[in-house]
Amino acid sequence: MVIAVIGDSSCPLEEAKVAEIVGEILAQRGAIVICGGLGGVMEAVCRGAKSKGGLTIGVLPGENPSMANPWVSIPIATGIGYARNMAVVKSAQAVIAIGGNYGTLSELAYALKSNIPVIGLNTWLLSRNGQEDAPIIRVNSAREAVDKAVSLAKKKVV
Amino acid sequence: MVIAVIGDSSCPLEEAKVAEIVGEILAQRGAIVICGGLGGVMEAVCRGAKSKGGLTIGVLPGENPSMANPWVSIPIATGIGYARNMAVVKSAQAVIAIGGNYGTLSELAYALKSNIPVIGLNTWLLSRNGQEDAPIIRVNSAREAVDKAVSLAKKKVV
Amino acid sequence: MVIAVIGDSSCPLEEAKVAEIVGEILAQRGAIVICGGLGGVMEAVCRGAKSKGGLTIGVLPGENPSMANPWVSIPIATGIGYARNMAVVKSAQAVIAIGGNYGTLSELAYALKSNIPVIGLNTWLLSRNGQEDAPIIRVNSAREAVDKAVSLAKKKVV
Amino acid sequence: MVIAVIGDSSCPLEEAKVAEIVGEILAQRGAIVICGGLGGVMEAVCRGAKSKGGLTIGVLPGENPSMANPWVSIPIATGIGYARNMAVVKSAQAVIAIGGNYGTLSELAYALKSNIPVIGLNTWLLSRNGQEDAPIIRVNSAREAVDKAVSLAKKKVV
Repeated sequence: MVIAVIGDSSCPLEEAKVAEIVGEILAQRGAIVICGGLGGVMEAVCRGAKSKGGLTIGVLPGENPSMANPWVSIPIATGIGYARNMAVVKSAQAVIAIGGNYGTLSELAYALKSNIPVIGLNTWLLSRNGQEDAPIIRVNSAREAVDKAVSLAKKKVV
Repeated sequence: MVIAVIGDSSCPLEEAKVAEIVGEILAQRGAIVICGGLGGVMEAVCRGAKSKGGLTIGVLPGENPSMANPWVSIPIATGIGYARNMAVVKSAQAVIAIGGNYGTLSELAYALKSNIPVIGLNTWLLSRNGQEDAPIIRVNSAREAVDKAVSLAKKKVV
Repeated sequence: MVIAVIGDSSCPLEEAKVAEIVGEILAQRGAIVICGGLGGVMEAVCRGAKSKGGLTIGVLPGENPSMANPWVSIPIATGIGYARNMAVVKSAQAVIAIGGNYGTLSELAYALKSNIPVIGLNTWLLSRNGQEDAPIIRVNSAREAVDKAVSLAKKKVV
Repeated sequence: MVIAVIGDSSCPLEEAKVAEIVGEILAQRGAIVICGGLGGVMEAVCRGAKSKGGLTIGVLPGENPSMANPWVSIPIATGIGYARNMAVVKSAQAVIAIGGNYGTLSELAYALKSNIPVIGLNTWLLSRNGQEDAPIIRVNSAREAVDKAVSLAKKKVV
């Protein structure tokens, strides 16, 4: 099972803490973590996953695998810039969004377009008529995020 | 001056009408229209622009230029699927969003990430704390959209 | 009719001269020139085409349209790096290769894979068993290259 | 260490046999195998690697991870079509090419452009003036290919 974790490359400390715990629990559940391979939320989730023996994939925008953060097990150097945001989410059976800026927003959009389940932790609210209009599952803790993601990913794999 | 017009490939009639008028006025102002090259809003804006002698670029997801709508002057067959959404907006000096679904949302995200001015006609509201949190300039008419887009694009070119 | 012209961003003077003449004749025949938008052969072919009133499309690797050479009418800022090489050839009905290094080689590969006619002026020889093994049409002059390209592109369009 | 193995999705039996042995030996040396994730040479190398407990990455052209061959441990669904050929080689420290058609040719081109060492088993000969003109290291057996690849990849990593 592959779970994508998305969020900004520069994030507040509390967001990084949440991402790290998400990574830890994902690894404990046996899920592979895929992310954009850079800093901030991406680095924190990889650090958490690695600390529990997990496998982490970093889908990088650049051409050089060595640009990945140190907790990426396998860097994929796409060389396609931020068009790689699509690949990050499409390779997963569920997506956990933690906070996030415009890059994360593009990843949310691609996941929703592909009907990949999205779990949101304090992330973008998307509306068309003033009320939320995207099937993002809102949760309030790292554990809840992983529970939802793993359960929805299993349905998707089957 | 190149202006991107983004919106869904399947849209209500009134949205298509607005897109067509946007295309007409853009052509009258001498702007080149760039879009995703498919149906719906993309087709309507190209039809409008062509009817006034404008030039239209369609940046297609597929590998075959002949998949463009009939009002595309120059189809670009990227072959990179919906990763082409990034190229649509990055090639423009301003973006006009008309309605739109998740594909349009990804284009908004890429434009905002690149600081390309975005003008919105009944499009996504993006918020992080319950209040709008993206510098989308909201307008209510085709003419107003073009006025804003052209004026902001000129500043960007200079 | 859209003809791609491919070659290195840094090329000998005589190659640039040939590229410029190819651009001039393509414009005189009413063909739109598409290329990678940068220097060397790409710049020379655009300069030639523009000098005869032609339209030139530059499909750039980067995110900034202003990186195009000055003779590009319409820059497409793909932001996908050298993955844009695929888009350059797929958007054309025929390809003219002038000299070229590894980037050009990838473009030849994509064109051949898609059965887009390729005309070669002093470009790569590709073989699998010691003898040429790719349907590149070898020519010796700019005029011959354009004649072949235009005639094959017409068949492809129909 | 990550080694890319490239070749056609439809290949003669003896080529598949060679690819399988390459996969086996790579896994025995502890190398991660990256490839395009589809059939033919890609499937054979994954099957070989998995049979020896190796880890295999399949960088797919499509949007659906389930399109990977059954011996891919981790499918990356890029959704960018054959522009993914660039990502396959750039993520590796060395490339082994086995036979191959035009897709493989584009991968060779990207690897050579990026100065990633390329080892060739009965693959394309590339020349500009009638004599080979690309630093492809020619070998005659699966074992020799892996020996060269591993030794060059180690230098690159350091």
